This record gives sequence, structure tokens and C-alpha cells, in this order.
Amino acid sequence: HRVSDEEDTEDDDPWQDEEYYGSYKTLKLHLEMLSDQPRTQTYRNVILQNSAALKGKRILDLGCGTGIISFFCAQMAQPEVVYAVEASDIAEQTSRLVKENAFSGIIKVIRQKAEDLKLPSKVDVLVSEWMGTCLVFEFMLESVLQVRDLWLEEGGIMWPSTASIHMVPCSAEKEYATKVLFWDSPYGLDFRMLKPMAVQEFLSKPSPDYVLNTDDCLSEPCVLMNLNMKTLKIEELEKMSGPFTFHVKRDGMFHGFTTWFSVEFQNIDNKEHVELNTGPFNPLTHWKHTLFMLDEPIQTHRGDRIEGSVIFHRNPFWRRHLSVTLNWSVTEESATTAHSVGCKVFPIWR
Amino acid sequence: HRVSDEEDTEDDDPWQDEEYYGSYKTLKLHLEMLSDQPRTQTYRNVILQNSAALKGKRILDLGCGTGIISFFCAQMAQPEVVYAVEASDIAEQTSRLVKENAFSGIIKVIRQKAEDLKLPSKVDVLVSEWMGTCLVFEFMLESVLQVRDLWLEEGGIMWPSTASIHMVPCSAEKEYATKVLFWDSPYGLDFRMLKPMAVQEFLSKPSPDYVLNTDDCLSEPCVLMNLNMKTLKIEELEKMSGPFTFHVKRDGMFHGFTTWFSVEFQNIDNKEHVELNTGPFNPLTHWKHTLFMLDEPIQTHRGDRIEGSVIFHRNPFWRRHLSVTLNWSVTEESATTAHSVGCKVFPIWR
Ligand SMILES: [Ca+2]
Ligand SMILES: [Ca+2]
Repeated sequence: HRVSDEEDTEDDDPWQDEEYYGSYKTLKLHLEMLSDQPRTQTYRNVILQNSAALKGKRILDLGCGTGIISFFCAQMAQPEVVYAVEASDIAEQTSRLVKENAFSGIIKVIRQKAEDLKLPSKVDVLVSEWMGTCLVFEFMLESVLQVRDLWLEEGGIMWPSTASIHMVPCSAEKEYATKVLFWDSPYGLDFRMLKPMAVQEFLSKPSPDYVLNTDDCLSEPCVLMNLNMKTLKIEELEKMSGPFTFHVKRDGMFHGFTTWFSVEFQNIDNKEHVELNTGPFNPLTHWKHTLFMLDEPIQTHRGDRIEGSVIFHRNPFWRRHLSVTLNWSVTEESATTAHSVGCKVFPIWR
Repeated sequence: HRVSDEEDTEDDDPWQDEEYYGSYKTLKLHLEMLSDQPRTQTYRNVILQNSAALKGKRILDLGCGTGIISFFCAQMAQPEVVYAVEASDIAEQTSRLVKENAFSGIIKVIRQKAEDLKLPSKVDVLVSEWMGTCLVFEFMLESVLQVRDLWLEEGGIMWPSTASIHMVPCSAEKEYATKVLFWDSPYGLDFRMLKPMAVQEFLSKPSPDYVLNTDDCLSEPCVLMNLNMKTLKIEELEKMSGPFTFHVKRDGMFHGFTTWFSVEFQNIDNKEHVELNTGPFNPLTHWKHTLFMLDEPIQTHRGDRIEGSVIFHRNPFWRRHLSVTLNWSVTEESATTAHSVGCKVFPIWR
């Protein structure tokens, strides 16, 4: 039961590849993704709407998992070839599934990491489901961009084509009550001295499995950042930021900000697009929403302005991780100076 | 970022003390336990119902956590002393809470592992909340019995006084459909070849956070084992077993067995007792229920008999772990031989 050399290596690997690819070798995450109807049906719709345009095209499905997107292409379109690229052990199962479903003539499973990929030729379409918590966590996006630069034909199609991060200030009464206010007087005792420990333990990282109720939105949401998959550069992932201004539409406690993302898939033959929006106004996905709580809530009123900015800093050592810096100020409707300003940095997850 | 000596040690420690005590040094588990109303109110009721009888008594609260049971004793009874024993780092907070709530005269916080405990004298009452998944997981019960043998007065009180493990055969359509049947034809594809992998991955261990709906019970539950805390010996924890016979009360698919536990607290001055029952006919607790699924469901009919036995084998190396062996046969009402027999061994968790 000695610690193995493998684990030793992992602990030094800024990409934590063993943990990352290891998590995709069992069925758990694949089941979660496949069972996510809004996610999977969106990819299916994209292929369906573009089935005529995909005829004779070379398609690359990066991080194909069990191969679902490749199967949609083979089922509903007539591509020349689909390269289904997957680095984790699940690729063995994917190969067997391709044979079993009689798509060996179209789908070529390639067990390879993106950076080691070799193809017989460039491709016309690069499709991938690379999105994570706060859109970019795990930074699979870097692999997608690398492969784009090496293997996508000039003028080729990127699916998704654009990606946006959305945010809204919100009330989160129940979260705050059950994690922080709880310590005020449980069973008539005075446990208030544990509150700083509770704030540190429960509020210093975001809640990645939060489900935001639309009633808890204090204003209309805004788009913080918008990424164009054709032009985005890998270096730009190091630091991404966006300003925000929210107009509070009702009185309420301001406990924090909730973020989510959306992606758009540009149709090949027309100006239409297909959208996947993971926000609270759309059906819930396995990504849920991400809640960033302030250490102390702020009472806000209809007409208040919440202004500030968000910065995503990619971790310079742990390359799949980032921190999210939130700056905010709350200003009353008629006032010129803010009555409350704050700043907080949230690691995701290192 | 080298692997530390500490982790190295942990990997060899059959008691996994670093992981075990480490998990109790943050607030998360304590919050979960304190927020569990049926659990915490039961302990409160026990103290309340026995407040007169506890006057002048010496009480030992083993694994006190944030000290909630000790606080109940100090609030509602007049014991001579309460020794609040806790090995994890949370004990520091507990000491501060005792001072803050002005109970330093009664509650003595002792940061010590059970096996290293030294007290000025024996105690009249040993109270503890040692129950885990399948009642015994983590085997904190061994520490309780050790301390009983060394520090409880002859004729002293054990709270809980008895503990029982309950079981029922059940339908679990949704679990089986979403984890196994899912692979039959997701999005019109044939993924059946993944079913053996899914059964292995999702059904080889029990689901410890299952919530059994009473409608899914195929028969009345039974008590598998009953433990008397005054007479139970540590050696008896190595292997515990019980037979069962269930009479199926309606037609339905038999997907597996669900277990839960109950504990009883004998009153000091009368024959009454207080019960905490974590089963599906009582309010849900943080222990939830534990589902053991068969690899393949069996169609059962009203009048069928499901007979067999359960054996808990404590892991001879990883001392906080156990395996649960289930043997079952299903016999039709009028038949003399079973139409289906099976056996499955479930690790919890090693
Ligand atoms: Ca993802
Ligand atoms: Ca417990």
C-alpha cells in the first residue's frame, strides 16, 4: 500500500492529467452528460439542422467520450469521415460501440491527447463539448484552440462558434441561513463564534451545483464576456474580464452573484444558429449554476445600481484551475457615491 | 508539492485516522449532524426526559463534536460533571463554545482519542452518537465499547442502550432505469454492450444516500440484528449476521434491499425509552437509507417468500470498513423450491 510513483508524478503535474483523464474512464460522468437532455439534444439539433451541409465533410469530434456527437453525424448526415478523438480509457468502449452500431466506415476512433493528434488531412468542422464550471474550468478549451490552429481548414466551422458568460446579482436566503445564520443560536445555544469559520469554510469558494430560482434574481442578468471560437487566442485565456452594471428591480437582500454560460452553433448554410443556454430561464443542465456569495449580505432597494467587474485569472501553475475576482459597489438610485463597496477572490478550485 | 510523510503514513494506517479525524475538523459534517432535527432532537429529548435522574451524575459524551449533547446536559439537567471527549481539531472550538456559553463549571472538554482517555473517575452515563452508514460503518462503536469497559461504572447507563438494523426488499425502478436500462438505446443508439460495465460501476457498492419511498417496499420490513450496548463485545463486531423471511404483499419488480437502523435510549428511572428510527416510515435523517441492488431485478408476486441472510464482515485490514453479504431466494406462494436464488457481496467501502 505504498504511495505509487504515479501518484507522486500526479502531484507535480500542473495539468493533473491522471486525475483529469481518470475521471472520464468510468461511466459516471458520461452518464451524467448523456442524460443531460438540453445539452445532448442541442448537439443533436445542430447536426440535424446542418445534415445537408455536412454531406462529404470531414468532421473532428474532440473529446468525444462515448462518441455521441460522432454517432449523430453518422446517423443523420453523410460526412466523408468523422474523427472521434478521446484520450481517456473510455475510447476502448467507444471503438466497440462504433463497430456494434455499424459505423466503422464513417467514424474513426483515435485514442490520443489533443496535443499529440495526427490526422491524414485537415478537417472542415471541429465540434467539441469542452464547457465546464464557469465555462472554462478544466481549460479543455485550450486543447480545442490548439487543434483548431493545427487541423481546421481555413474557413472551417467551429461548433460551438461563440460562448458567453452571464451573471446576475441574487438573493440566496436559504444558503445563507443554513450555512451562516444557523450558528447564531442552534437549539438555544450561542455558537456565534463559529460564524467566521463558517464563512471561511462555506463561502470562500463558489457553489458549482447551485440552482438559481428566477425569483431570486435582483435584476436582469448581463453578459460578462463573449468569446469567438474562430478568433480566440490561447494567451487570452490567461486573463479574461468584463464590467457589469445591474439595475436592482425590487427590494431584497443581495447575497451574491450567480453565473452561467451559453454557447451558439452557427449554421453552415444560413445565418441561423442553435443556442444552448444553461441559465435559470432555460431548462436545467448538469452544469447547474455557479453561486459566488459575499461574506455578508447587503440590503438593496429597487432602483439601486450594482456596478463592478469580474476577472478570471487562470492559475499560472495548476493549468486547469482559475480564480474569479469580483469587485462590486452598490449605489442608491439618487446617490452619486456608493454606500457599499467590496472585493472578493474565489478559487476554482486552486 | 511532494507527497508528504503524513500521506505516506495514512496509506498504511488500517484505521485511516488522518482521514477520519480530518473530516471532523471542519464544520461541514458538524453542520450536517446539527441540522438533522430527528437526530439532534432525539438526544435532546433523552436528556430532557431524564433531567431529574441526571442530577449529580457524571456523564461522558464520547466524540462530542461541537458539544451539543454536553450542552443539553448542562442546560437541562444538573450533572456533577460532563466529560466532553473529542479527538479531532474541532475540540478547540468546542472549548471556546463552552466558555462562551458559561458552562465551564460543568463541561470539561478533553481532546483525546478514546483509547488514550484518562478520567479522574468512572462515569454513571456514557452517551455517544457513534452511528454510521449501515449502523456500524467507521466502527466508532469499537471506541465506545472500549471506553464502556474501562470507564463506565458497574450498572451505569449506555445511551443509546440498544441498536437494530432493519431491512426490506424493494422496487427501485428509477435507479435501475437511469443507471442500467439507460444504455439500451440512448438517442436511438445501441449501447447495450456498456451494461455490464454499468452494473459493475453503479451496483457493486450500496447507495448510502438513497431515500426509500414507502410505496416501493415489497413487504413489511424486518429487524436483522439487535445489539445490546451493555453486553455487546468488541469481538462480536467482526462478524454479525441475521436471517430474514419477507412475505411479498404486492406484485412488483424486486430490485434490491434497503437497510436502515434504529436506536433506543432506556430511561434511567422508568421502563420507558426514547427511539430514533432512521427508516422510511419516520422523518428523514442525514443517514438517509442504504440501497443494495441486485445485478438483475426479479419479478415478484403477491404471496412470494423472499428468504435469506445478511452477514456483515468487518474488514480484517481496513478496520473502519466492512462488507455486506446478501443471500436470497424467492419462492412462489404454493411452491416448495425457490425459482430464483442469488448471492452478492457489497464492500462498504473497502
Ligand atoms: Ca464538460
Ligand atoms: Ca455518525
